[in-house]
Amino acid sequence: MRMVDIITSKRNGNELTDEEISFFVRGYTKGEIPDYQVSALMMAIYFRGMNERETLTLTTEMENSGDRLDLSAIKGIKVDKHSTGGVGDKTSLALTPIVAACGIPIAKMSGRGLGHTGGTIDKLESFDGFNVSISTEEFINNVNNIGISIMGQTADLAPADKKLYALRDVTGTVENMSLIASSIMSKKLAAGADAIVLDVKTGSGAFMKTLEDSKALAEEMVRIGKGAGRKCIAIISDMDQPLGSAVGNAIEVREAIDTLTGKGPEDFTELVMTLASYMIMLGGKASNADEARKMAEDAVKSGDALNKLAAFVGAQGGDSDQVYHPEKLKVSEKSIAVKAEKSGYVERIICDEVGVACMMLGGGRASKEDEIDLSVGIKLMKKRGDHVEAGEDLAIVYYNADKDPDEALKKLSGAYVISGNAPAKQDLIKMIIE
Amino acid sequence: MRMVDIITSKRNGNELTDEEISFFVRGYTKGEIPDYQVSALMMAIYFRGMNERETLTLTTEMENSGDRLDLSAIKGIKVDKHSTGGVGDKTSLALTPIVAACGIPIAKMSGRGLGHTGGTIDKLESFDGFNVSISTEEFINNVNNIGISIMGQTADLAPADKKLYALRDVTGTVENMSLIASSIMSKKLAAGADAIVLDVKTGSGAFMKTLEDSKALAEEMVRIGKGAGRKCIAIISDMDQPLGSAVGNAIEVREAIDTLTGKGPEDFTELVMTLASYMIMLGGKASNADEARKMAEDAVKSGDALNKLAAFVGAQGGDSDQVYHPEKLKVSEKSIAVKAEKSGYVERIICDEVGVACMMLGGGRASKEDEIDLSVGIKLMKKRGDHVEAGEDLAIVYYNADKDPDEALKKLSGAYVISGNAPAKQDLIKMIIE
Repeated sequence: MRMVDIITSKRNGNELTDEEISFFVRGYTKGEIPDYQVSALMMAIYFRGMNERETLTLTTEMENSGDRLDLSAIKGIKVDKHSTGGVGDKTSLALTPIVAACGIPIAKMSGRGLGHTGGTIDKLESFDGFNVSISTEEFINNVNNIGISIMGQTADLAPADKKLYALRDVTGTVENMSLIASSIMSKKLAAGADAIVLDVKTGSGAFMKTLEDSKALAEEMVRIGKGAGRKCIAIISDMDQPLGSAVGNAIEVREAIDTLTGKGPEDFTELVMTLASYMIMLGGKASNADEARKMAEDAVKSGDALNKLAAFVGAQGGDSDQVYHPEKLKVSEKSIAVKAEKSGYVERIICDEVGVACMMLGGGRASKEDEIDLSVGIKLMKKRGDHVEAGEDLAIVYYNADKDPDEALKKLSGAYVISGNAPAKQDLIKMIIE
Repeated sequence: MRMVDIITSKRNGNELTDEEISFFVRGYTKGEIPDYQVSALMMAIYFRGMNERETLTLTTEMENSGDRLDLSAIKGIKVDKHSTGGVGDKTSLALTPIVAACGIPIAKMSGRGLGHTGGTIDKLESFDGFNVSISTEEFINNVNNIGISIMGQTADLAPADKKLYALRDVTGTVENMSLIASSIMSKKLAAGADAIVLDVKTGSGAFMKTLEDSKALAEEMVRIGKGAGRKCIAIISDMDQPLGSAVGNAIEVREAIDTLTGKGPEDFTELVMTLASYMIMLGGKASNADEARKMAEDAVKSGDALNKLAAFVGAQGGDSDQVYHPEKLKVSEKSIAVKAEKSGYVERIICDEVGVACMMLGGGRASKEDEIDLSVGIKLMKKRGDHVEAGEDLAIVYYNADKDPDEALKKLSGAYVISGNAPAKQDLIKMIIE
């Protein structure tokens, strides 16, 4: 089998056989097939696409290209969750303790990632003493004892995807639905859960800007998940404005804790409760979404979810007192408000500008080596549809002395689009793809 | 400027700017842009194409990527010729002495190349003592003194094309008209001639199998040539069967010499005379093709063309006596005939099979390091349309003891398709693109 023939076949619009896909994924992972042939194939796939079988084979080949997390020592149906990401997306922090409190074992491996804020792992480090670098044994024990553990990605999950994604990123071959879906799902499958709930964002602040594209991606991922023998559901949710009010790290943890005590922002609470319902349902603890939602709400009302978070934080060396007293989490003391220049309605909040403002304060990473300042962040005082008077606070910026907040303030001010008329209300949950 | 943006722009169907094309050709030649980005761009170009301006810019950027042959010390209009290649294509050997005899300076740089037989340079080495490795000074002097010189490719002409072609060859991105045309023309332009006659082959033995594709390639190359300020004409000719009767090296030289004495095969003679006419016309020695053809025919009849070949061979250290006595050129003494298995008409002769048979005898190169046996070859006794009796000779194989000719005989036998009816006659010259 020759790589050039595989490239030419796809270029000519043929389906690749399972053997051909296996040949190139394995050869590429081993370094036997050069980057320049794989990038040409990726571009041919960009133009010709892949069918359901090809996409599933690519995904499972990448899933099997490295370590796979063995969760068999954990009792019960393990349910994982993945978000396609956005601004203010602290969902895992509130969601996982609720679901764990309902008896679903949460064994989550999470990355640091690049972007406007840190990843879940970074945010968790806002708790004093919290340790993400635990052994797989400790991880499994914690899940069996407490019902929840989240660890940094130590295992070499789906290295083929890692290599392929890095190549696609610099060769203009990211934007293909099959390739995007297989990249996400290969890692999720290798992470070992029995069921996966996908939080697919849509809108200007999402990777997929249109509902049509978000739906296509969600459907592709659900097909892959089911094809690989897992239970799989996708929820498409709004990312046309930042999620909730907090953007940053420690400040997002505070908002997640607020949500666990029933005082979270309406949009974020709604998303968390919806995702929780489906995770509980897939975990076999409820027979329908309504029943599952009731369980999730009870877990919040009873305080079980908050206690679950405290137990989880404590078990990984973190200060669980901060769970009950989130004001003790370190958020910068210096703050400055962004004021409205005119009266009107918030027509939109440009997600990416808010994200960039947070980066400018030091709250995110541009490259892997960057240090994150967990204490900086942004609190949005007004959201889409809110009425605002000229001079009123739109947002509060929390900053430290080492970074002048001026540029971030300008960005934030530009992120708010104020107009004379209230915009049409948008649903937070757009679609459920089962 | 970032390469990934250039790739994405072409992928999205945009025209590349001259600056973008220049950026990637220069960056790639210098090794600053990696193969994997260039192969992705080539695949995007395969799908999206390039317009006339983009193709011309790519060509001239490649032309200017290395040395350029300076022919300004040669008096008169320098006319070069290029063939897209095929089986039995010994055209330059007969054509250039005729044109030179008509007063057109021939300063031709020629490669060895890979394939069924050697290149022009290899074939010329069939003359005892012939030296292709002369200095550029000697080359220029010979043209000024004798009117003709052909040297091996010593200068680093169009290195960007060399690098790009090698990459395209292994990434499934050869088959794009703009890329093929710019590859050929960049080298031709760098070789310095004022006018270029292109011999574009069409048919099963050609790179372009259909007349439509051959026409598109010819038009693209003529547009580039004219766009770069050169006179340029393309002749589309038949390569649905081998050209002439001889396939090999010394045996092809013999046939070229036969043609210079008026005893060449009809098809080959016709092609040589047609190409000669247009070269003479572009060289300004005749005002129309008919007049030019008359001059070419006279050069053969008078013996001037043969004498020109002898002078040329002699000036480069070769045995010019062999020009007048081609039987002295070393062709293998061992020979064996391929016999017709049934009576009928030769419906077709599969070019590639004849070529492979010649390779099997040792007459061609599979890789750059291979040695060629100049003395082996094939003489086709029957051509398309000829009537043949069962048991009659179809072809004679000339071989040496180191290579068993059995496989080559089988190939040749399979190359002949005999049928009950005479096939329709095909024109040798299909089109002239001016």
